[in-house]
Amino acid sequence: MDWKLWDRIAETHPLIHQLTNVVTVNDCANITLACGASPVMADAPEEAAEMAAASDAVVINIGTLRQDQLDAMARAGESANKHGVPVVLDPVGAGATRLRLEAVDRLLKRVKFSVIRGNSSEIGTLCGRRSGRGVDANLDDLDSLLPSIRNLAKELQTVIAVSGPVDYVTDGKQEAYVENGTPLLTRVTGTGCMLTAVVGCCLGAGIDPFRSAILSLAAVGIAGEKAKASLSEGEGIGTFRIRFFDEMSRMNGETLEQAGKVKLLEKSV
Amino acid sequence: MDWKLWDRIAETHPLIHQLTNVVTVNDCANITLACGASPVMADAPEEAAEMAAASDAVVINIGTLRQDQLDAMARAGESANKHGVPVVLDPVGAGATRLRLEAVDRLLKRVKFSVIRGNSSEIGTLCGRRSGRGVDANLDDLDSLLPSIRNLAKELQTVIAVSGPVDYVTDGKQEAYVENGTPLLTRVTGTGCMLTAVVGCCLGAGIDPFRSAILSLAAVGIAGEKAKASLSEGEGIGTFRIRFFDEMSRMNGETLEQAGKVKLLEKSV
Amino acid sequence: MDWKLWDRIAETHPLIHQLTNVVTVNDCANITLACGASPVMADAPEEAAEMAAASDAVVINIGTLRQDQLDAMARAGESANKHGVPVVLDPVGAGATRLRLEAVDRLLKRVKFSVIRGNSSEIGTLCGRRSGRGVDANLDDLDSLLPSIRNLAKELQTVIAVSGPVDYVTDGKQEAYVENGTPLLTRVTGTGCMLTAVVGCCLGAGIDPFRSAILSLAAVGIAGEKAKASLSEGEGIGTFRIRFFDEMSRMNGETLEQAGKVKLLEKSV
Repeated sequence: MDWKLWDRIAETHPLIHQLTNVVTVNDCANITLACGASPVMADAPEEAAEMAAASDAVVINIGTLRQDQLDAMARAGESANKHGVPVVLDPVGAGATRLRLEAVDRLLKRVKFSVIRGNSSEIGTLCGRRSGRGVDANLDDLDSLLPSIRNLAKELQTVIAVSGPVDYVTDGKQEAYVENGTPLLTRVTGTGCMLTAVVGCCLGAGIDPFRSAILSLAAVGIAGEKAKASLSEGEGIGTFRIRFFDEMSRMNGETLEQAGKVKLLEKSV
Repeated sequence: MDWKLWDRIAETHPLIHQLTNVVTVNDCANITLACGASPVMADAPEEAAEMAAASDAVVINIGTLRQDQLDAMARAGESANKHGVPVVLDPVGAGATRLRLEAVDRLLKRVKFSVIRGNSSEIGTLCGRRSGRGVDANLDDLDSLLPSIRNLAKELQTVIAVSGPVDYVTDGKQEAYVENGTPLLTRVTGTGCMLTAVVGCCLGAGIDPFRSAILSLAAVGIAGEKAKASLSEGEGIGTFRIRFFDEMSRMNGETLEQAGKVKLLEKSV
Repeated sequence: MDWKLWDRIAETHPLIHQLTNVVTVNDCANITLACGASPVMADAPEEAAEMAAASDAVVINIGTLRQDQLDAMARAGESANKHGVPVVLDPVGAGATRLRLEAVDRLLKRVKFSVIRGNSSEIGTLCGRRSGRGVDANLDDLDSLLPSIRNLAKELQTVIAVSGPVDYVTDGKQEAYVENGTPLLTRVTGTGCMLTAVVGCCLGAGIDPFRSAILSLAAVGIAGEKAKASLSEGEGIGTFRIRFFDEMSRMNGETLEQAGKVKLLEKSV
């Protein structure tokens, strides 16, 4: 694994256009800056296509979906596809409501994504929908989902990144497991959204989708580990969150090389 | 007062559906996680009812109201009522504009709330409106408002929690004063909204509305006191806010028992 | 320069009505509180005019523009003008899309602004549009823009504040350069938006527009300098941001007098 690819973000300073949720939009902008990229958050339907065309990567996150925003997302994604700008999707809560399921379906029909990043429940929903099995896949057991995930990645010609206690990445042929992280990351809102924004930063720096996903999962996991290790007696979630930003702003290829825990597998398909 | 009830939040890990303002939505999600509950922020009219039915409590906060969001709030509230899911209202700035007054009226007509939490100006507005006295109640003098607040609580069959230098809680029969807190809490945006989110966490854990209000007021007040006490020379509002999250993430029944200052009164009505 | 004017904010505790973007709205509310003013964020078209009339200053920021929000901004601005309430504009990303260009044009036609605050690219766009030269002004070279900026300030009868490595302020006659700040401020999202909110706080405290701009640029710059100086080994962007809020909450006329670096010029026009 060439961890030094990470440093390309700060070198190329890509512009990352993000259509995301109102809960974590500030965190996503700050993590983008921490990585050395430049964020622009614009989700009015009237300007989404124009902004996407002018950017180096587009991030679409359905965390607090509105109809007009969904329209903007489709326009931004199509414009990005047309202009060769990579797009990453975060299908937040995909299985929670009909609105979200239909939104994901609509986006997958209109937009080609370089990476889709979700947790096992969200990715399981995507697999279930498309295989006709509904949304009740056994989500606790990532292993049983792997064949469906590989098939979905091949069908959509995308990289799928599943975060969890151990993260999993596949493009249908290659596979990787990333073992960095800490459960504390799940006690702070937006770490998933920020992870997807980081994937956008990597893509925008010209890193290929498979390595963009691995680098992002490792970087966020390592920053979480270091932030946790820095906590003193009496410090909690608030301080952890700030240290996480500190560590992300200091992340580089060397740190990734030292602390990254990745297992790369070649799959014969 | 059975302070150990607080620990039920982490034990039951309830899902708290919040329709809230864009200013403090991130803070409300983080405070929910800090308490040991799980937040979901969804205010599209198309999914609000579905999400409310699947959650353990619903939080409605009109801080940055939009018409479509108001529609979603009413739908979420009605769905919650139908499915036995408790709902808490934060009537932010209720008296500031006609839009907000009418929104609160509409919500009170369509939704039964377990708890209404506001400052004395907001609660005074609610009392004034309904008693026909207009919005010019003497808000500086909580004592003069108490009869109206008790009547409103009885009329709406709800618990009303008024935060201020000393907090007041009533269901029209029982009453309590909570004396925890620090003026620094008013120097950070969102502490009121977060307080209401915490009430939602307690309700979602199955705690009765009266005790949910008391526990929340005490927990937020104590976290503020401890955060303030931890400040060193040169630290200000930024650090205070982070320590507040730290303290909330470490809150438990034992700390509440030691530091909670509550006066419970039985009212003969 | 009378730096003690700053202390009027805490003395008068003005209400600052802000119609701003979803990315930094929480930061803008917190910086307003840190300065000693009181924020209210309300951008529904139905209540914008009413809220503006009741406030001491209005802040308009087009960072994540929606059509209904633009409508609210125009209504709030007109209402403020009618009631003698000063208004400040932050034309975020003015040149990035047609939507934003047209929005700024529309706002400038309907609303008289006391101060317009942007970076050199945004202000250059405003100059270019109005001079018919398009948006391709040489933005790296502030000096070459100065004549256009002065003309625009005179034409609009406003104060224009351009932030950058060295900040520039003019009302077309008087001019000032402010040399406080650190590049770290550009590594945190929202420092520009917060700066504009601080201008609103000064205006709301009754300080004249030219001095409001200078005081705000110096205060934010000094807070950044002090926050940077406080960082220890291993601390990064996250901690810097918190210390910045700490410093803003401790800012006063005395600190400004000691650390403010301003060059005032009288221009014969």
